[in-house]
Amino acid sequence: MIDTLISHIHKFVKLTPAEKEILQSYFTHKALKKKDFLLKENQTCTANYFIVKGCLRMFYITNEGAEQIIQFGIDNWWLTDYMSFDNQLPSQFHIQAVENTEVIILERRIQEELFEKLPKMERYFRIVVQKAYAASVMRLRYIFTQSGEERFRHFNESFPDFVQRVPQYMLASYLGFSAEFLSKIRAKKK
Amino acid sequence: MIDTLISHIHKFVKLTPAEKEILQSYFTHKALKKKDFLLKENQTCTANYFIVKGCLRMFYITNEGAEQIIQFGIDNWWLTDYMSFDNQLPSQFHIQAVENTEVIILERRIQEELFEKLPKMERYFRIVVQKAYAASVMRLRYIFTQSGEERFRHFNESFPDFVQRVPQYMLASYLGFSAEFLSKIRAKKK
Repeated sequence: MIDTLISHIHKFVKLTPAEKEILQSYFTHKALKKKDFLLKENQTCTANYFIVKGCLRMFYITNEGAEQIIQFGIDNWWLTDYMSFDNQLPSQFHIQAVENTEVIILERRIQEELFEKLPKMERYFRIVVQKAYAASVMRLRYIFTQSGEERFRHFNESFPDFVQRVPQYMLASYLGFSAEFLSKIRAKKK
Repeated sequence: MIDTLISHIHKFVKLTPAEKEILQSYFTHKALKKKDFLLKENQTCTANYFIVKGCLRMFYITNEGAEQIIQFGIDNWWLTDYMSFDNQLPSQFHIQAVENTEVIILERRIQEELFEKLPKMERYFRIVVQKAYAASVMRLRYIFTQSGEERFRHFNESFPDFVQRVPQYMLASYLGFSAEFLSKIRAKKK
């Protein structure tokens, strides 16, 4: 389980066997059933989650009562609500398993100690967060520029397996349109 | 000039006098006139910019020929196109001075050497990028949820000075609507 995380870390920083040993003691593991929650709105987010296998979604409920998905997390991604995590304020989001999902957990209360013992992990997270940030800026660009249909085609070409994996209504929510609109685009494609 | 940056760094990590000395040699400084560019579309982004005083905008030209602003950067913010910076690919954005602006520059080619000499700087950037990422996720939420008018009111309440400082058409672009729409909202307010 932890091996998946260590392989991911190794893409960015090299760890000695002794460092790997230290690392392991800072992480716990959780198996989530589909629909289990890791965070609910108004709770304060206390951990960062690495997805070993599965899929998480971060979403909120709009004033109209609809679920709006802000982010998905799949294998080899970290997901948390950094706004709540950093400032220890109530979260404005839910984080929920879309399918049965295995996560590795880094608790906020021991994160600082980990960084002190292994400064390389500070580097690892700097790189990982920078990539997530760059992706988020590109996502903004797509939302501003592309029509719903272009957004779906682009997403479908970039992540064909993922599109098959998640329920249509979630995909529609993530892309910012209705499930009915998505059905129409998909029908047209055939 | 560098003192402004060092004060900002000190909010997150403490530097010894010797470390401050090392730090200084890694940064250069540039005074930009209003409308000067730091990056143009299709150029590869080679540096990260800390705004000492002034205002930058990151934007692109839509297929319809309009300027779409993705981000503003003001005093005490870092701004770069991380997608281009990290992957050394041509940028899809312009970065331009909105007013006369003083920036401190960290060149990508010496960034790694800086992090090796001062691992604390890795921590500093981890924290700074994490904050920018959290803000970007919240921005997505506002764009999905709020009407144009709500977005303007919220932005106006959060950053009243900034709203006075930038041209109306740029503010409208950043908030995702037309300059005409912004004029209408502002007229209504009075």
